[in-house]
Amino acid sequence: MFEIRTRSTDGRARTGTLRLAHGDVQTPAFVPLATRGAVKTLEPRDVEALGYEMVLGNTFHLYLSPGPELIDSYGGLGAFMRWTRPIITDSGGFQVFSMGHGSVAEEIKGRGRGRGSTSNGAILEIAEEGVRFRSYIDGSERFMAPETSMAVQAALHSDIALVLDECTPFHVSRDYTARSTERTHRWLERCLDWHAQHGPRDQVVYGIVQGGVERDLRVASAETVAASRCGGIAIGGSLGQDKPQMHEVVDWTTASLEQSAPERPRHLLGIGDIDDLLIGVGLGIDTFDCAMPTRLARHGVAIVPDPDARWRVDLAKASFRNSHEPILEGCPCPACSAGFTRGYINYASRAGETTGPRLLTLHNLSYIQRLMADLRVAIDAGTLAATVAAFMAGAAPSVR
Amino acid sequence: MFEIRTRSTDGRARTGTLRLAHGDVQTPAFVPLATRGAVKTLEPRDVEALGYEMVLGNTFHLYLSPGPELIDSYGGLGAFMRWTRPIITDSGGFQVFSMGHGSVAEEIKGRGRGRGSTSNGAILEIAEEGVRFRSYIDGSERFMAPETSMAVQAALHSDIALVLDECTPFHVSRDYTARSTERTHRWLERCLDWHAQHGPRDQVVYGIVQGGVERDLRVASAETVAASRCGGIAIGGSLGQDKPQMHEVVDWTTASLEQSAPERPRHLLGIGDIDDLLIGVGLGIDTFDCAMPTRLARHGVAIVPDPDARWRVDLAKASFRNSHEPILEGCPCPACSAGFTRGYINYASRAGETTGPRLLTLHNLSYIQRLMADLRVAIDAGTLAATVAAFMAGAAPSVR
Repeated sequence: MFEIRTRSTDGRARTGTLRLAHGDVQTPAFVPLATRGAVKTLEPRDVEALGYEMVLGNTFHLYLSPGPELIDSYGGLGAFMRWTRPIITDSGGFQVFSMGHGSVAEEIKGRGRGRGSTSNGAILEIAEEGVRFRSYIDGSERFMAPETSMAVQAALHSDIALVLDECTPFHVSRDYTARSTERTHRWLERCLDWHAQHGPRDQVVYGIVQGGVERDLRVASAETVAASRCGGIAIGGSLGQDKPQMHEVVDWTTASLEQSAPERPRHLLGIGDIDDLLIGVGLGIDTFDCAMPTRLARHGVAIVPDPDARWRVDLAKASFRNSHEPILEGCPCPACSAGFTRGYINYASRAGETTGPRLLTLHNLSYIQRLMADLRVAIDAGTLAATVAAFMAGAAPSVR
Repeated sequence: MFEIRTRSTDGRARTGTLRLAHGDVQTPAFVPLATRGAVKTLEPRDVEALGYEMVLGNTFHLYLSPGPELIDSYGGLGAFMRWTRPIITDSGGFQVFSMGHGSVAEEIKGRGRGRGSTSNGAILEIAEEGVRFRSYIDGSERFMAPETSMAVQAALHSDIALVLDECTPFHVSRDYTARSTERTHRWLERCLDWHAQHGPRDQVVYGIVQGGVERDLRVASAETVAASRCGGIAIGGSLGQDKPQMHEVVDWTTASLEQSAPERPRHLLGIGDIDDLLIGVGLGIDTFDCAMPTRLARHGVAIVPDPDARWRVDLAKASFRNSHEPILEGCPCPACSAGFTRGYINYASRAGETTGPRLLTLHNLSYIQRLMADLRVAIDAGTLAATVAAFMAGAAPSVR
């Protein structure tokens, strides 16, 4: 199911191919969010034209609406949303627990980097059996057990399903983290048991490594997940209070996985800033998902090769009102190549014309896709360090 | 500037070509709205791919934001919004007067068929010199004279500019309508004077026929406009309280124009339901603009060949929640040909995913474009009556 093509000689980076039910995914890859069954502002043909091979659907949101039965009746999420290529589905754990842990979830992932808002819902009980919560859509009481998540993901017919985990918040005690992680491990086994009995044969299940920011807990969790029957491994939960700590947590985890599960694919959940992608690939992450490129676009922010500005330029700012400059000089994306200016994007964003967010979504996703393609080429060529250094110094992705 | 190709032998319908500064427009044609500089939810390349050759920008809205100076600095509205083909700009008269006449404007055009909302603004004074009003954007006091409208449209570099008119409401007295229409004629001359001195050489100016629902006033207005230096003629204002009366008003007007200005192109302002298009073409209308296809799309409504339901199906209704049917069987539009179902459109519309409105905008505009193409073919073939009868009986436009 995962074929590694090239292992970097100076680090954990590797290129490979995920061979999934609906097609292949070249890795390392970024996975755009289709949280509620659509990559916001785009059609599937747009996403495919940008070169993406997989999108991420969200089990929690789709469970509440339109519901797994309805999506199953269409033959799965791909058939429903007219995306013919692979889909990975998030387990819903992050969303369920972010209702309970509240702002802690934002703290974990950084403001605006969470895996979808659940602000109107409420968590009612976290128990060994599962989680009771109130739907943010209609206020109804719902229950999600590990088996529920797997059953929903089976109905969604995703290529990759994630096990239900408790997304441990950052501020809790080591003891809570340890107990929470142990429950996540028990839930992992229940998910795998359910899937072995009832799951689609062609669906791959990824376990999730938790353990907060405690090195020994992370390593133990990685070993536990690696020792399970899962087909791939995701890294979730609290990844620290800042980027250096987050990168350290990923480093501990992939170092451990390099020993215990070197052949299995690794997904980093909800992380995808440019520097995180560059560092994550170097640490041996194969796939990433993140709301960043699509969410920034809806707020008028374009991704540009400017490390000092966190690779962002806020085109909604008044200073761009009269800018005749392109979004990014030389960029081959559909928005830049059509000649749209920063001034037009500024106007459209402020006027509430959804054409503006659409153009920026195309630009941002094109940027990330070309960056990832460059990283794959660099790994195969043995030049990853130089390529990462160039991007960190402000190089733009190749025009392709 | 306007070459008539075929005159129908059994009515006033004709096919022709508008030769404009930015290219040709085959007529009869429907003109999608790009009110504020974007066809809502679409990119210009989408509009062009559907086969459209012209869009309509709105002088009133663009005057207030982002302002004519800014758009002029880009080289005009087309360059600003990245639409390379012809643009017609509305004069702003309808929007200014709809602020004063309030709900009357809705009465005239039918609910949801007006030329853009101005609900937060206010008209302050209508005088011979022009109209003072309060901006709905920032509350500032603004003034629009006929010369202002022409100057704004010159800055927008539209291919076709419309003269400023008072859009006479329906409920006023015959006397008010007569005096209002006379002022509109004086404004016509002022617009043409300004344009002759300052307007772009390659911009065509259309006069506007007013006269309410009074036959003699309409005919007199048509004759006055026809006797002017205008390059084309638009029909505006109160077109009656119901469709039969509206069609009668158009009939009086085009019958008069057939005598006085048979070679000049005719535009019907703000009208474009399917039956209005079918009847309007038969009455000798060359171009139409209307918010209908794009606005309905944003409310989950698809255009379908169902005359009994006014060619509409409201896919946001709960009954379509589980519909596996396509939006329209056999439809070649980008949404239908990609296999999107009524159930998915229902879900996306309710979930607030803009992909839903986008798909319906593509569908609705594709439908209208193919309908107009069929009418052009039928006129050239001498089979218009049969083609219109077939559409009135529920035929779908050709797949092309």
